[in-house]
Amino acid sequence: MSEHTVSAYDEELTAMAGKVAEMGGLAERAFADAVSALVTQDHELAKSTIENDERLDALHQEVEMKLIEMIALRQPMGQDLREITAASRIANDLERVGDLAKNVAKRAIAIDSNLKSKKLAIGVEHMTELALGQLKQVLDAYTRRDAEAARRVQEADAEVDAIYTSLFRELLTYMMEDPRVITQCVHLLFCAKNIERIGDHATNIAENVYYMVTGDRLPEDRAKLDETTGAV
Amino acid sequence: MSEHTVSAYDEELTAMAGKVAEMGGLAERAFADAVSALVTQDHELAKSTIENDERLDALHQEVEMKLIEMIALRQPMGQDLREITAASRIANDLERVGDLAKNVAKRAIAIDSNLKSKKLAIGVEHMTELALGQLKQVLDAYTRRDAEAARRVQEADAEVDAIYTSLFRELLTYMMEDPRVITQCVHLLFCAKNIERIGDHATNIAENVYYMVTGDRLPEDRAKLDETTGAV
Repeated sequence: MSEHTVSAYDEELTAMAGKVAEMGGLAERAFADAVSALVTQDHELAKSTIENDERLDALHQEVEMKLIEMIALRQPMGQDLREITAASRIANDLERVGDLAKNVAKRAIAIDSNLKSKKLAIGVEHMTELALGQLKQVLDAYTRRDAEAARRVQEADAEVDAIYTSLFRELLTYMMEDPRVITQCVHLLFCAKNIERIGDHATNIAENVYYMVTGDRLPEDRAKLDETTGAV
Repeated sequence: MSEHTVSAYDEELTAMAGKVAEMGGLAERAFADAVSALVTQDHELAKSTIENDERLDALHQEVEMKLIEMIALRQPMGQDLREITAASRIANDLERVGDLAKNVAKRAIAIDSNLKSKKLAIGVEHMTELALGQLKQVLDAYTRRDAEAARRVQEADAEVDAIYTSLFRELLTYMMEDPRVITQCVHLLFCAKNIERIGDHATNIAENVYYMVTGDRLPEDRAKLDETTGAV
């Protein structure tokens, strides 16, 4: 393979990683905006978040087609193949993060009232902060090809799960105390579950970054634990 | 390309479609078993359903690697490329169906009591029957390359969504009437939501089968409506 070809290939890989990073930026933004719309009851922000998901989906399709083109033209092996499969899986996870954020935005509109308690709002915001932090760190680890940073993201998921479990119990308690808040609390439960799953997707991405950089699998994580189902 | 090569390629395509169909069989089985474990409170069945998900995940990874190998070796275009991208997306959807079934099985164990009402059990079973029917039909459409059958699956999703909305309201009512059933009803809400999403995945598969066979997009579906969020 001539040097020119190799260099063109490197450029393609970099461009593709750039598109995946762009998807990451859109997914982060959608997630932050959706929760902000939920906590502040900003319906306009919720609506624009729902609409913006189309851009993320379109970018995902673009990345998918580009990856297929690269595999067909370059027949990558070893490290190059790992880069391409990692990009494909990461793009899938980011598209799902966008869907989950969109669902939170829809529920922000459905709830149509302020969060029942300050404590609840703080819980949701704290969980979001952590999951958003995971997402930012893992996208950064992807860009910098930093396996060690990716490993740390996987470890952080335990805290997101712990807050989810605590919010889940708190919401059940509110519902038992006051049946009038049941509908609102059910939507909040689904929102909290969506945020917990965004944490899981960040962990998936971490596993793929680690594999891409090192060629090894990360030691098994804690099976993306949702303790509220009590059965793992 | 020699006739021998073409024929070897056709064999590879058929083998790959066979693996995807095998994934479909496992996903169907997991879904049926999980709901059966939920309705009959069969914890052993729930546990084996949770464990069996590993086989589906392993098969998914095998399909993914095989697809990449085929793209690299055959550099498919046109119809062949559509077959391969469809298989990749369908395999993704089936892996998600397995995850959702696993989550229902976990909640079957967490609930640890019979369904509150016969009416509720009938609702969950009816919804499952419809979504399972969608899944069977779409896998059949995939095997027979039947675009028209795929289109009908997309149409059937409206009924699954309608039952979900009705179950959602019924569960809220139960919770308001009797706070002691709140925890159980919350798990059932998540189960119903998972079943509704399995219907969405069947619809996604239908869209991919239609595209694979015809090269055209299916006219836009009803945006995989979840009416309980009230905002679409």
